[in-house]
Amino acid sequence: MTPEEFRQHGRAVVDWVADYLERVEQFPVQSRVAPGELLALLPEAAPEQGEPFANLLADLDTLILPGITHWQSPNFFGYFPANASGPSILGELVSAGLGVQGMLWSTSPAATELEMRLMDWLVELLALPDAFRSDGPGGGVIQDSASSATLCALLAARERAVRQGARMENLRLYASTQAHSSLEKAVRIAGLPAQSLRQVDVDPDTFAARPEMLLAMVHEDRDAGLVPFFVQANIGTTSSMAIDPVREMGEMARAEGLWLHVDAAMSGSAAICPELRWTHDGVELADSYCFNPHKHLLVNFDCDAFWVRDRSALIQALSVLPEYLRNAASESGAVLDYRDWQIPLGRRFRALKLWFTLRWYGAEGLRDFVRGHVALAQEFAGWVRGEPRLELAAPAPLNLVCVRHVDGDGATQRILDEVNAGGRAFLTHTRLDGKLAVRVSIGQAHTERRHVEALWQAIRQAA
Amino acid sequence: MTPEEFRQHGRAVVDWVADYLERVEQFPVQSRVAPGELLALLPEAAPEQGEPFANLLADLDTLILPGITHWQSPNFFGYFPANASGPSILGELVSAGLGVQGMLWSTSPAATELEMRLMDWLVELLALPDAFRSDGPGGGVIQDSASSATLCALLAARERAVRQGARMENLRLYASTQAHSSLEKAVRIAGLPAQSLRQVDVDPDTFAARPEMLLAMVHEDRDAGLVPFFVQANIGTTSSMAIDPVREMGEMARAEGLWLHVDAAMSGSAAICPELRWTHDGVELADSYCFNPHKHLLVNFDCDAFWVRDRSALIQALSVLPEYLRNAASESGAVLDYRDWQIPLGRRFRALKLWFTLRWYGAEGLRDFVRGHVALAQEFAGWVRGEPRLELAAPAPLNLVCVRHVDGDGATQRILDEVNAGGRAFLTHTRLDGKLAVRVSIGQAHTERRHVEALWQAIRQAA
Repeated sequence: MTPEEFRQHGRAVVDWVADYLERVEQFPVQSRVAPGELLALLPEAAPEQGEPFANLLADLDTLILPGITHWQSPNFFGYFPANASGPSILGELVSAGLGVQGMLWSTSPAATELEMRLMDWLVELLALPDAFRSDGPGGGVIQDSASSATLCALLAARERAVRQGARMENLRLYASTQAHSSLEKAVRIAGLPAQSLRQVDVDPDTFAARPEMLLAMVHEDRDAGLVPFFVQANIGTTSSMAIDPVREMGEMARAEGLWLHVDAAMSGSAAICPELRWTHDGVELADSYCFNPHKHLLVNFDCDAFWVRDRSALIQALSVLPEYLRNAASESGAVLDYRDWQIPLGRRFRALKLWFTLRWYGAEGLRDFVRGHVALAQEFAGWVRGEPRLELAAPAPLNLVCVRHVDGDGATQRILDEVNAGGRAFLTHTRLDGKLAVRVSIGQAHTERRHVEALWQAIRQAA
Repeated sequence: MTPEEFRQHGRAVVDWVADYLERVEQFPVQSRVAPGELLALLPEAAPEQGEPFANLLADLDTLILPGITHWQSPNFFGYFPANASGPSILGELVSAGLGVQGMLWSTSPAATELEMRLMDWLVELLALPDAFRSDGPGGGVIQDSASSATLCALLAARERAVRQGARMENLRLYASTQAHSSLEKAVRIAGLPAQSLRQVDVDPDTFAARPEMLLAMVHEDRDAGLVPFFVQANIGTTSSMAIDPVREMGEMARAEGLWLHVDAAMSGSAAICPELRWTHDGVELADSYCFNPHKHLLVNFDCDAFWVRDRSALIQALSVLPEYLRNAASESGAVLDYRDWQIPLGRRFRALKLWFTLRWYGAEGLRDFVRGHVALAQEFAGWVRGEPRLELAAPAPLNLVCVRHVDGDGATQRILDEVNAGGRAFLTHTRLDGKLAVRVSIGQAHTERRHVEALWQAIRQAA
């Protein structure tokens, strides 16, 4: 495709995306196709000859859109917000157009240095510890997801423990029963035995980790000759947005020599608002921390922001240097090579979409955005409290509200099914304390009061 | 940003990218900035107020472009081709615009089913084993990189071996001394001891693994009570594009009960041309296979294509199912959930860019593209053979030519330095048999005969 053809077709695609965003509210939020429906419509083989670009655009409408669950709909209240704001999408487009590899500083210095600076910007915006800044021994890096960030944190901690003489099979780590499943997956990937992950009980009302249980487990394990090495605290669990007592867990981690990883994937964005920073109390004790600008900070997936207090621990765990990657800049020690901060070698220039988003909205715009959704969720929680057939299944500290019917799981399931079948909104579920709950996640870029009100009417009606 | 603003700014970005692609040849290929140069120009903090979009575009020119090493220049002959063709870039744009999560079938059925079908298309296009097709027990999936694919293959094989009773510390795996560094990294991530990776000697002329050495090592290890479980064969090593004897290694793997992973990241694209399929002889013996459409098949990074013969092995290794991801479609068993085929949980709709690329160029267009570069590289290798001051450092079976000066490393280094300093082309290096070699990788989307001729003049002059 020549640059001139790209110019022409690119405009058509921009228009298609703009049209899509304009009409996204018209579609049923959840796709209604059955398994195999798209497969049956797609040709069995690739075309021999190239096709006109117009065919591709037409097929987006006829083949693809029916199979889309519309995460960009303002009526999407499922899972978590996965926002794709305009500036972010356009940053992604520039990244794809430049098509550079950011694996080494030298393979495109701008990719590394813009990312370093933006990660420092975020440290300030979220009031994270100065120790995370890249002008000291720490630093931040963009990962594809919090799953990968958690895995990297675990590997760095595992490496440190093994270098200190621990045997892999004796290692023990801790997180609440509500921690994200990515931690269990990371444990498995890292080759640690399943029993190495110990689940800390949570408070039955708040679903936050009980630090005294953590301490008891650490002591029990140490007494048994095992090696506690890692603890994860959650700021915003996936199920109910529970906030662990990071300070108490961090103080225990320090006293016991454990690596403290803070998983704030869901709720790190809240820290951009000073009045919501109570969620981050104690975060200065963290050895590593991650949150997802691709959830509630208007950057399109993938963009997880991950920091470490001591980057050398991470690099020692992940650096392998073959001859064909050697270069003068790396050997000078004057640069960071982000390939050593992540699982894969190659990396896209993801900093561009974060840069475009932070600059287009500005810190004030982002604070207003987060605040607006938290306020809507708080209002929604108030409505639930006033409705005798419904109850809150967990505290709703920020922008997630977990709701259940007082008549039990069957009635709660009917709410979920009825709202989703209507197609005007989309909800997902969880289990809290063994009981089904509907999760109302308020955070899609274009969700306004009217969308939340309509959802509330639909829920009340179903209840 | 409203859809209407997106339309307006999106057109400006499309024009910016088109302009960039038009003028990319004018820039020095390798960035000339010094460490810290961009950092010094970037503000210390994010802006408080949002900025006009025009500021962002202006800064791309003034701040970012000087720090770019131009992987999209037709004079980029370094590392490997990382092509960003027009249709692929626009597929990426649609993916960012739709902003869906493809982690589960149910979170956007089209994302999963399009990917399944495209991976089947590629099986046919490359004449890969039918066992890789998703309508049987195997299947394919898009990974971010071959590093991640290799890690997934290793984890699936490790899981199988451990379920069969092997102890982690006794596991042994095999690959040639020329295998990509991602394998060593995967071993470390997977928690296998460093000594578990055994390096198989290569033929001193071809740099291909010596299968008799592999067999000897496997027997030696078994005799020592260890558990051989995995072998990797390379189709196109990074250093010199060496092609291992996949058939012989595969037969040994079958006989010995080892998982055969084929890493064709560099040269899998060659198999799209029937006359180059000799490189893939024996690939039907593979348990897993990966290649990178984001290298030499015009799809922009990230797009690694990864297949397994038995998807249950992969899923057993990587599936963790929390309540909040449960859904009726997954439990019906009628769908694939790609989250269980990869390290992270979240995933972009990467199939779109592959789809756009395959349809825009068609199979014929892609074959012509690959053929053209292989022919240019063969011609280049002929020129080297005819130049007494230079010699081939390795066979040049496809589109990579490794060259050294007959006077030794000092003279070879001077060629590299002089060509790169000139800015008209960019080359990287490797070491083969202990000696420095310049790698000439011919595969950038817009590289034509005139670019290769100009490079040859520059090399001859430097020599």
